[in-house]
Amino acid sequence: MAEPPKLASLDSSIISRLPSFSSILFEAKTAQGLTFEQIAAHLGRSELAVAALFYGQAQASAEDVAKLTALLGLPRTGAGAGGAAAAVAQMTGFPDRGRAGPMPPVEPLIYRLYEIVQNYGYAYKAVLNEKFGDGIMSAISFSSKVEKEVDESGAPWVVITLRGKWLPFTRF
Amino acid sequence: MAEPPKLASLDSSIISRLPSFSSILFEAKTAQGLTFEQIAAHLGRSELAVAALFYGQAQASAEDVAKLTALLGLPRTGAGAGGAAAAVAQMTGFPDRGRAGPMPPVEPLIYRLYEIVQNYGYAYKAVLNEKFGDGIMSAISFSSKVEKEVDESGAPWVVITLRGKWLPFTRF
Amino acid sequence: MAEPPKLASLDSSIISRLPSFSSILFEAKTAQGLTFEQIAAHLGRSELAVAALFYGQAQASAEDVAKLTALLGLPRTGAGAGGAAAAVAQMTGFPDRGRAGPMPPVEPLIYRLYEIVQNYGYAYKAVLNEKFGDGIMSAISFSSKVEKEVDESGAPWVVITLRGKWLPFTRF
Amino acid sequence: MAEPPKLASLDSSIISRLPSFSSILFEAKTAQGLTFEQIAAHLGRSELAVAALFYGQAQASAEDVAKLTALLGLPRTGAGAGGAAAAVAQMTGFPDRGRAGPMPPVEPLIYRLYEIVQNYGYAYKAVLNEKFGDGIMSAISFSSKVEKEVDESGAPWVVITLRGKWLPFTRF
Amino acid sequence: MAEPPKLASLDSSIISRLPSFSSILFEAKTAQGLTFEQIAAHLGRSELAVAALFYGQAQASAEDVAKLTALLGLPRTGAGAGGAAAAVAQMTGFPDRGRAGPMPPVEPLIYRLYEIVQNYGYAYKAVLNEKFGDGIMSAISFSSKVEKEVDESGAPWVVITLRGKWLPFTRF
Amino acid sequence: MAEPPKLASLDSSIISRLPSFSSILFEAKTAQGLTFEQIAAHLGRSELAVAALFYGQAQASAEDVAKLTALLGLPRTGAGAGGAAAAVAQMTGFPDRGRAGPMPPVEPLIYRLYEIVQNYGYAYKAVLNEKFGDGIMSAISFSSKVEKEVDESGAPWVVITLRGKWLPFTRF
Amino acid sequence: MAEPPKLASLDSSIISRLPSFSSILFEAKTAQGLTFEQIAAHLGRSELAVAALFYGQAQASAEDVAKLTALLGLPRTGAGAGGAAAAVAQMTGFPDRGRAGPMPPVEPLIYRLYEIVQNYGYAYKAVLNEKFGDGIMSAISFSSKVEKEVDESGAPWVVITLRGKWLPFTRF
Amino acid sequence: MAEPPKLASLDSSIISRLPSFSSILFEAKTAQGLTFEQIAAHLGRSELAVAALFYGQAQASAEDVAKLTALLGLPRTGAGAGGAAAAVAQMTGFPDRGRAGPMPPVEPLIYRLYEIVQNYGYAYKAVLNEKFGDGIMSAISFSSKVEKEVDESGAPWVVITLRGKWLPFTRF
Amino acid sequence: MAEPPKLASLDSSIISRLPSFSSILFEAKTAQGLTFEQIAAHLGRSELAVAALFYGQAQASAEDVAKLTALLGLPRTGAGAGGAAAAVAQMTGFPDRGRAGPMPPVEPLIYRLYEIVQNYGYAYKAVLNEKFGDGIMSAISFSSKVEKEVDESGAPWVVITLRGKWLPFTRF
Amino acid sequence: MAEPPKLASLDSSIISRLPSFSSILFEAKTAQGLTFEQIAAHLGRSELAVAALFYGQAQASAEDVAKLTALLGLPRTGAGAGGAAAAVAQMTGFPDRGRAGPMPPVEPLIYRLYEIVQNYGYAYKAVLNEKFGDGIMSAISFSSKVEKEVDESGAPWVVITLRGKWLPFTRF
Repeated sequence: MAEPPKLASLDSSIISRLPSFSSILFEAKTAQGLTFEQIAAHLGRSELAVAALFYGQAQASAEDVAKLTALLGLPRTGAGAGGAAAAVAQMTGFPDRGRAGPMPPVEPLIYRLYEIVQNYGYAYKAVLNEKFGDGIMSAISFSSKVEKEVDESGAPWVVITLRGKWLPFTRF
Repeated sequence: MAEPPKLASLDSSIISRLPSFSSILFEAKTAQGLTFEQIAAHLGRSELAVAALFYGQAQASAEDVAKLTALLGLPRTGAGAGGAAAAVAQMTGFPDRGRAGPMPPVEPLIYRLYEIVQNYGYAYKAVLNEKFGDGIMSAISFSSKVEKEVDESGAPWVVITLRGKWLPFTRF
Repeated sequence: MAEPPKLASLDSSIISRLPSFSSILFEAKTAQGLTFEQIAAHLGRSELAVAALFYGQAQASAEDVAKLTALLGLPRTGAGAGGAAAAVAQMTGFPDRGRAGPMPPVEPLIYRLYEIVQNYGYAYKAVLNEKFGDGIMSAISFSSKVEKEVDESGAPWVVITLRGKWLPFTRF
Repeated sequence: MAEPPKLASLDSSIISRLPSFSSILFEAKTAQGLTFEQIAAHLGRSELAVAALFYGQAQASAEDVAKLTALLGLPRTGAGAGGAAAAVAQMTGFPDRGRAGPMPPVEPLIYRLYEIVQNYGYAYKAVLNEKFGDGIMSAISFSSKVEKEVDESGAPWVVITLRGKWLPFTRF
Repeated sequence: MAEPPKLASLDSSIISRLPSFSSILFEAKTAQGLTFEQIAAHLGRSELAVAALFYGQAQASAEDVAKLTALLGLPRTGAGAGGAAAAVAQMTGFPDRGRAGPMPPVEPLIYRLYEIVQNYGYAYKAVLNEKFGDGIMSAISFSSKVEKEVDESGAPWVVITLRGKWLPFTRF
Repeated sequence: MAEPPKLASLDSSIISRLPSFSSILFEAKTAQGLTFEQIAAHLGRSELAVAALFYGQAQASAEDVAKLTALLGLPRTGAGAGGAAAAVAQMTGFPDRGRAGPMPPVEPLIYRLYEIVQNYGYAYKAVLNEKFGDGIMSAISFSSKVEKEVDESGAPWVVITLRGKWLPFTRF
Repeated sequence: MAEPPKLASLDSSIISRLPSFSSILFEAKTAQGLTFEQIAAHLGRSELAVAALFYGQAQASAEDVAKLTALLGLPRTGAGAGGAAAAVAQMTGFPDRGRAGPMPPVEPLIYRLYEIVQNYGYAYKAVLNEKFGDGIMSAISFSSKVEKEVDESGAPWVVITLRGKWLPFTRF
Repeated sequence: MAEPPKLASLDSSIISRLPSFSSILFEAKTAQGLTFEQIAAHLGRSELAVAALFYGQAQASAEDVAKLTALLGLPRTGAGAGGAAAAVAQMTGFPDRGRAGPMPPVEPLIYRLYEIVQNYGYAYKAVLNEKFGDGIMSAISFSSKVEKEVDESGAPWVVITLRGKWLPFTRF
Repeated sequence: MAEPPKLASLDSSIISRLPSFSSILFEAKTAQGLTFEQIAAHLGRSELAVAALFYGQAQASAEDVAKLTALLGLPRTGAGAGGAAAAVAQMTGFPDRGRAGPMPPVEPLIYRLYEIVQNYGYAYKAVLNEKFGDGIMSAISFSSKVEKEVDESGAPWVVITLRGKWLPFTRF
Repeated sequence: MAEPPKLASLDSSIISRLPSFSSILFEAKTAQGLTFEQIAAHLGRSELAVAALFYGQAQASAEDVAKLTALLGLPRTGAGAGGAAAAVAQMTGFPDRGRAGPMPPVEPLIYRLYEIVQNYGYAYKAVLNEKFGDGIMSAISFSSKVEKEVDESGAPWVVITLRGKWLPFTRF
């Protein structure tokens, strides 16, 4: 029996931590059988940003919502659209970030990212300070992408790129 | 008055959390006026890995130690070398990782990395699951680098690359 | 397509931490398309205080409620007003403060304020002690405002002012 | 008996959390009988920034160190200066911020600032979002000052101003 | 417009932490427009004890329940009384104390009491030990009251009295 | 064998949490065989305030220090007084409060006070709100005393009085 | 008015932490007016074990369930018994222990037991090690009972007995 | 080779949490080869109480100290006794209880006692409430003992008895 | 009366932490009277993996779902299957691991496993480092099994085997 | 240059958490160039148990100490042996377990073991309950071993076996 393509969905036990549009979007995505890559191509945005938007961690423009509701077959406005339309309209609101999962993360995949910060945090700081001075890499003027590489043995590797503006501490 | 080049050093209040060779290495690095970039070039290793090694978060090979003690003018073996030689010899031991700083991080630079995990953790998971299946990106079969970009307006940007092997969950 | 003005709304996942009038007020505000600045002008109160009132962190006077229900088209009293009227009436009650969000904050905007306390807390204490003696700045006999500045390059800056009565420790 | 002017000093139980120059600076400040206001005037920096520098939460320029060591009568370089000179030299290093005190703060004065964030955090967010859009107030491109006001009844009030650059979330 | 007398009520977000009779009692109290002082007078108990009883932190006698249901117009027994009667009957049960709010308290008024324990805890211990020996002040064989004083300038002061039996540690 | 009068002293394991003058004062107090009641009478201050001062939780005036050093036979100034004089001089500094013991308290006597806040916190809030309005009892414009009562059966009771100024929330 | 005998019941705010049969059992116990002592006598088990069983902390045998449902008038099996029968059937399942209340306990009665462990933990260990060697007292091969004593003055005392098998650490 | 009798001693890593007399007492006990049972017999106190006294969790009378110093060959007073005599004198001071080990306990033996409270806490409360009313078992008017039983199979069992005065909540 | 075979079921208080299919699966398992061993045999997977799958901690293949729904009599697809079919379909999704229970575990059985990590963690590390070098045992390329042994005295022993791939830290 | 065999050693920052003999043993082991496997063979004990013994998590017999001091060239008794002999003698004392590292573990290798408990805890419980009934696997009547396997591709695998006695909950 052929396996259908695997799509990320929402564990029911996490729904109460997310805005109400999250479960609507994920259900529609599953119903349409769309990957984040496909949705991102349609919206002209990064795959990661679109996933963040589904989890309520990024803001949608009105144009994003128009394209997304069309693609996913969701109600956008109008009589009869009911709660779903109101929920979807919240996507253009200001995200209330940072509450999707517990910290330290308990999910093994997310924990590995946390562990990188735990183990290499001071090393990043030392190298960045020497290269840029006293400051931080912004997590706001920031973008990130995920890529796949396959090595000579055929094994897959993940490449995550974090790109943030350097902000020097103001002298005052 | 011309400012001397700024080098990362060790806050005295963090020393008790690190192996004893950490303060010896940082002091020698300051005395020699060397950046991590210079030391990394000498060792043929990544700048970030060398910084991690100074913080006791990565293992040195015997060859690393030989090159490093030569470069930094540190005692390596022999009578009279005293505690410093013994401490330096620990660099080839098995690192006891993860205790350099508190989690959640209180240092603003390190906190920004933590915040990226907090905000985008589930988005990374969703995208990685769709691209690779059920598994994790290894933080062990892993390397990372730090680069500097300057945009058209002359503003500096940090680019951090994380590269880890994809490990699928074993079916059993 | 022109973007509608962006209004702060309530993430559905935070509602259970707030008094029941919070979601009623935010929904009416959205329906009326009003900003906190507009509501504050109507009430003759500070924009920040009005936002705090919506989150159940400040007390409304009976006059505030009268003006607010009129402006937002909410039921205030009378038969048929139902649960909404009762909820709105709670606005003149004694706020049960401090439970809107987790501490340390996970929302990046709120975290930055927390970080200022974390980094500069002792510096504020030292300066305040030298200027005022042994005591505290009250967070009760207290007001705050938010202003916008634009620098010569056109970049926007936030200016937050905190004004609190100085309270010396009683000698006893 | 006339009371001498009160100067902020360092509680001995906090010293191990701070860089080693902190206690050297505070002791010299006490010996010279200087307030932060006086030192700040000498350095041409903000009073708060100078206090932060004493606590290891801000970076000193080489010129700051030159002026400061002269004013406080501290050794700066040279044979025989010993540990103090080395410690003072660390002031131009990259600060390892955020570890001066526990969070939540237990010191009543610092707790009041924390409480303001706890109570008004979401109100600040709502007002800032409506005024500026989706983003944060930077705590890095940031300055702050402390002022004293006296009301008509003669009671003193503290005015703390926080000024940070607005950083919009990057759309990606 | 004359303000009605302000009565303590129950924030809806705290209800799930309290026994089910709490919201019934508070609603009836509001409907009857009664203060805790008035209810306490009717019951012949302390005002504070009555408030504690409403929050499920103290036990009611059968006589208390009889008086209280009469005063508040609540069902006590009998067919048709439904859930309210059952809930009220629980007031004579054994209280499950200590879960009304989080610790450390986030409510500013309650935090101030906590802060007194934090700051003066060891001072109370030292004075009590010298006055009474090795032991504790009971929080069980205990009563407390709240009084209002007005100083010569017309400013109100709170006086809280804690009275507990001294219990010496048993020598064994 | 007659027992000597019992005096509060300092557990050696708590010393690192307190300012350095704490152990000097307690040792001198023990050597002189003085109770806090006797020292308080000599200083004209409250017994509890004097104990707080010994734990670094309250500020001493210059006159307090003069009287205290005379009573306890401690060096105050002058050549040869050494570290003790410097430590004692810190008593007139600005206390760094709140770090004497852990919270929640583990000491049974202090825990009982904490438990009173835990159990009766909301009851105090409700009663104070009804009596005074929306505000807090200050823990800064505050004094406290400890008294002993003996009931008709001869059993001792502790009476602790907390007196704090009422501070209404500013309307803004 | 004669007080009815007091029975332990279930605070409604704790129900969500317990298995669903807990509230069914407690309600039936209240309806039947039975004490744990009476139920224990009927089941031939310890009073404490029966209470633990009601809280989902101990396993019931099929015979226990038969006796208990008969005594309490509860449905056990059969059409029409509905959810209650299913819930009761869970009593013979494997208990998911340890989640009834928070740790550290906030309930004063339970806290006192916790405090005994906190204060005397190492003393118990030292005495047990000397008496039995290197090992532990099992909390699994374990029983406990509660008894009442009245001293010569008529004051009641609680006697709790803990009896556990000694398990020596395996040498390997 | 015959094993010497095993005596409880002090792990060096716990010493900083205990009063300074703890290590002096344990070392002398080891040197004299005495068990707590032997010391308790000499002092006429409970074995557990003596162990608690060694850990700084119970108070010694002057007579206890006299007997103990004689038995252990410790200096008690007099010139030349030095720090040990001063430390021993602290045994009659007021214990600063509860800080010997972390909570939750990490030591397996102590954890088992904690687990009993965690699992059976509410069961103890229910049974005690039904037997005694609304109140607590005192941990202050309290004694405890440890006994050894051997069952018919020769296996050893621990019997711990906790005996505390019942304290009813005061009605006020 | 013969006891029916005991099956693991789901405590109702844990359901909200698990995906919605968990309670559906456990109920069907109970209804069919099947053990994990029987289900595992039917699926051709490990007994432990099947239990993990029921708790939402492992991924099911489409074939697993087909076999499982057939065995348990669950709807898999089609009109009228309703929520159960959708929930079951989620079993092939990407598990959101790690949230089934609190850490540290409060369930005694799970705590014992945690305690093994707590007590022997560094010993495992030291032995693994010496045997394999600098790296970790994967918990992803990982399988585990549970076996029963009976010793010569007839006492049952649990044997848990953990088998994970060794991953050396990448040198970079 | 040939790398010397790698031996597990002690990170200097962990020493204060361990008994004083730990650093003595590790230093002697390094000086003698011995692996745990070699020491275990000499002692006739498990490699893991010997490592645990070095970390103060297991008890040594007098015979273990005799063999170990002979093998490592350590003083055992006698004049002039000094502190080392006393420290070594402590190895036969009762271990104060569980404090070697923080929980949750920050060391990646140890964290993986913790993660197995976090992810599979309830699955182990369900399987064990069905196989053995209501009880636990003892972590005291317990042994464990570590083995190395190499798969057909030459990749190394770790096999950890945990073997503990099954303890059924006592019915009482």
